[in-house]
Amino acid sequence: MKITQSLHRSVQIDPNRLMTVDGDRRITAKESFERVSKLAGALIAYGLSVDDRVAILAQNSDRYHEVLLAVPWAAGVVVPLNSRWSPDEVAFALEDSGATVLFVDQAFVDVGLGMKRRLPQIRTLIYMGGDRCPSGAEDYEALISAAEVAGDAGRGGDDLYGIFFTGGTTGFPKGVMLSHDNLMVSTLSIISTGHFLTPRGRILHAAPMFHLADIGQWIGGNLLESTHYFMDAFSGAGVARSISENNVTDVLLVPTMMQMVLEAAAANSIDLSPVSHVVYGASPITDTLLQSARAQFSEAEFTQAYGMSELAPVATILLPEDHSDSELRRSGGRAAPLTEIRIVDGEDNELPRRTIGEIVARGGNVMLGYWNRPEETAQALRNGWMHTGDSGFMDESGYVFIVDRMKDMIITGGENVYSVEVENVIASHPSVAMCAVIGLPDPVWGERVHVVVQPRPGTTVSLEELVAICREKISGYKSPRSLSLVDSMPLSPAGKILKRELRAQAGTSSMANAT
Amino acid sequence: MKITQSLHRSVQIDPNRLMTVDGDRRITAKESFERVSKLAGALIAYGLSVDDRVAILAQNSDRYHEVLLAVPWAAGVVVPLNSRWSPDEVAFALEDSGATVLFVDQAFVDVGLGMKRRLPQIRTLIYMGGDRCPSGAEDYEALISAAEVAGDAGRGGDDLYGIFFTGGTTGFPKGVMLSHDNLMVSTLSIISTGHFLTPRGRILHAAPMFHLADIGQWIGGNLLESTHYFMDAFSGAGVARSISENNVTDVLLVPTMMQMVLEAAAANSIDLSPVSHVVYGASPITDTLLQSARAQFSEAEFTQAYGMSELAPVATILLPEDHSDSELRRSGGRAAPLTEIRIVDGEDNELPRRTIGEIVARGGNVMLGYWNRPEETAQALRNGWMHTGDSGFMDESGYVFIVDRMKDMIITGGENVYSVEVENVIASHPSVAMCAVIGLPDPVWGERVHVVVQPRPGTTVSLEELVAICREKISGYKSPRSLSLVDSMPLSPAGKILKRELRAQAGTSSMANAT
Repeated sequence: MKITQSLHRSVQIDPNRLMTVDGDRRITAKESFERVSKLAGALIAYGLSVDDRVAILAQNSDRYHEVLLAVPWAAGVVVPLNSRWSPDEVAFALEDSGATVLFVDQAFVDVGLGMKRRLPQIRTLIYMGGDRCPSGAEDYEALISAAEVAGDAGRGGDDLYGIFFTGGTTGFPKGVMLSHDNLMVSTLSIISTGHFLTPRGRILHAAPMFHLADIGQWIGGNLLESTHYFMDAFSGAGVARSISENNVTDVLLVPTMMQMVLEAAAANSIDLSPVSHVVYGASPITDTLLQSARAQFSEAEFTQAYGMSELAPVATILLPEDHSDSELRRSGGRAAPLTEIRIVDGEDNELPRRTIGEIVARGGNVMLGYWNRPEETAQALRNGWMHTGDSGFMDESGYVFIVDRMKDMIITGGENVYSVEVENVIASHPSVAMCAVIGLPDPVWGERVHVVVQPRPGTTVSLEELVAICREKISGYKSPRSLSLVDSMPLSPAGKILKRELRAQAGTSSMANAT
Repeated sequence: MKITQSLHRSVQIDPNRLMTVDGDRRITAKESFERVSKLAGALIAYGLSVDDRVAILAQNSDRYHEVLLAVPWAAGVVVPLNSRWSPDEVAFALEDSGATVLFVDQAFVDVGLGMKRRLPQIRTLIYMGGDRCPSGAEDYEALISAAEVAGDAGRGGDDLYGIFFTGGTTGFPKGVMLSHDNLMVSTLSIISTGHFLTPRGRILHAAPMFHLADIGQWIGGNLLESTHYFMDAFSGAGVARSISENNVTDVLLVPTMMQMVLEAAAANSIDLSPVSHVVYGASPITDTLLQSARAQFSEAEFTQAYGMSELAPVATILLPEDHSDSELRRSGGRAAPLTEIRIVDGEDNELPRRTIGEIVARGGNVMLGYWNRPEETAQALRNGWMHTGDSGFMDESGYVFIVDRMKDMIITGGENVYSVEVENVIASHPSVAMCAVIGLPDPVWGERVHVVVQPRPGTTVSLEELVAICREKISGYKSPRSLSLVDSMPLSPAGKILKRELRAQAGTSSMANAT
């Protein structure tokens, strides 16, 4: 299978169908085909060879869509960069992947020019901004106008499609190598449930396109002949307005984003009823949020997908019908139809149901490996299974309850503490708006349970109060031993709390120690 | 991807779900898993090694389902044999594939015993009949009872799943090698349209299970958690009754079969409304048949799939919404989402729309090759495309109109005659119930256009009458020059007229020559 195939098919069956709409730019399948063919031609003219890496650092746009197709068309490998990264992180990913071409838009042109000066490996910097192209960069539209048409290189199957850096909540970024088949299998797996996308619908790319969740929806949309709409930067009001103005049928959001869209729609009386499929991930949906979402996305069904970059990205799926059960809503759903999921102990033995262990996965969606990291690849893929590093358990009906990111597990006085369990208790305190439990180094306990709390406006909370409610509900060793209060939490683009940053801050912030 | 995976998943998420229902035998996912594991264990105990071929010659049953899973589970290769074959044809396929194990049921036990005597390569004959096992064969249930459980060998991806002999309408049978991925891609391609099967529905296997159309539906049903029901031998009344009694939601039929089901249901006032998806193939549906079908399958949508064994088997799909257009109804639909389709000339150059040429296909569903036939494989797959041997044209919207099987094209006096064009004219004669146009050797014309007609009961028809109506509508050289009248047409299990047999009969039958 190959990612570019749906573009060929689109031109064959409906060349005048709208493929992308970005502001005033409306591009048909035929035009998209021509632009992609010429952009690929330009890349080849600039010396791109088979398997050369092409990075992109940009907000969502129709041009992002074109780059995602033109790079494999020219036999290259896409490297989408995280738009929240610092210049040092961008430089790291560029150096690590060895990219020779970098696409940037208006928002990242300065970073791009800096990278070109800093890294001689960047031979070509392409400016997608549309306004006057700065010196040192090539203009995207000028390149397309001048280029010769290239034929599709026909990359597919096990060929490398892209390198996706895992940033997120833990560890140093690693480049995840995904093949065409990896991405197609993940997408077909969720499509086969019948609850992913509306055939010939209108998708709003609200989540960032460098994120695999969005790329999965983009591939699915290409297969099902969708029209793509784009949000350059996320805002709740922007998403709500686009849904209403463009009759958007499909949208992927994390719960944090969903909350913001609902609030903006309510404040501005915007109708969200065009949407028929809302897919969300990163964390379960709360009862309160689901209730508002059902009221406002009145015609939509809700599907949750749990996964990770290494799984391209879908591992488990919580179907719309599962949402009627408040217990199941706290799970990540069941194994996607094309993926095997097990819960195992440290020796990869399958554990009985309802016993917490590591979640492992097997199937055609499992990554080729980590770029240039054979040892970490071998470790992650040992015994033929992808070790997610997440802990969880499975119930009698195969629903997977994600207990914690494995690396967020705290070992205190020899006991394992799963931070989510403590967080659930602390979140019930009326003054807590958001909280995160982390392990901090401790001379006595090895690690101690530390909690970071963002209080609700105008309130505060003490460690004693939190310990008191914990003592009612969980074992004593799980109670927090120290507390930091913050005005806001550091969040990943996907809306996850960045515990790595909390750990870094913890050393310098004021702290109330109970021990 | 692997064909056995859905059985693992079924046991994980819903072990007590009914997987197969065959008469009084109701088998859950958990029981199916146990029986398949033990049947695989028995095959291994009898000496089956990696890639060994295991043939099956049987009517549809729950045990057929088990064999289709147990063989790859034991690392073997399935060889489903055509139940309409003569013993010589069965022997040919067994010898050609080198099968060492043969499964037979009650209907084929004598053929099976004969094969075991005739071919020393058949080391194990397994009797699936359920009643007293004849001497010389092993009893299926006894084997399962006594066997050790085997773990799944984990065959998948490009591993060979089965060898499927192309019988059908042309040429000498060749073994088509299909991998796990070939079959999965074909199935996922039609699933992704959203119009193939009802999730968690009830499938009636009315078409023979050795046929790839049915195997595709079986794989799809396993993915979508369907329950399988079986017709051991096809009858219109039997299918209609099973639909009504079992609330069947999904059924695959060829138009000939559909006609018989509708007639039987009407005659016996049987309600066909439980069905939500009717998939048909082999030939387009006529307006008259569609009208009756819509009235009686009152809640169903109709989807046509065109394909061939070499494409595992789906190439193009005519969606339910396409059926409202009487012009499009005569097409085979558009390229399946995961398959590329082109119409090419003799040098594989793509032809303009509406120009007749050969239909070629490319994609993950294209066979690995013909078993032990490297030259025919190279010829069929030249330039990276599967050459279907069928001729057709594509309209501006990518709909493929199949004009004829390439090998059925008649060349008479240097002119090409596509038999379907002549058949369409002759079928309009009020006395013609069924007709087939073939080329017969002719000293003057090279080949001459010959027509075989099955007249409606109590009527007859002359060559002069047929020539007269042809002259009104098509070029003179396309008119039939000779005629045979028959009481019934030889039909393939898929309901296609066997032109090969008509050609063989033509030499001996009475004939009225116009020249």
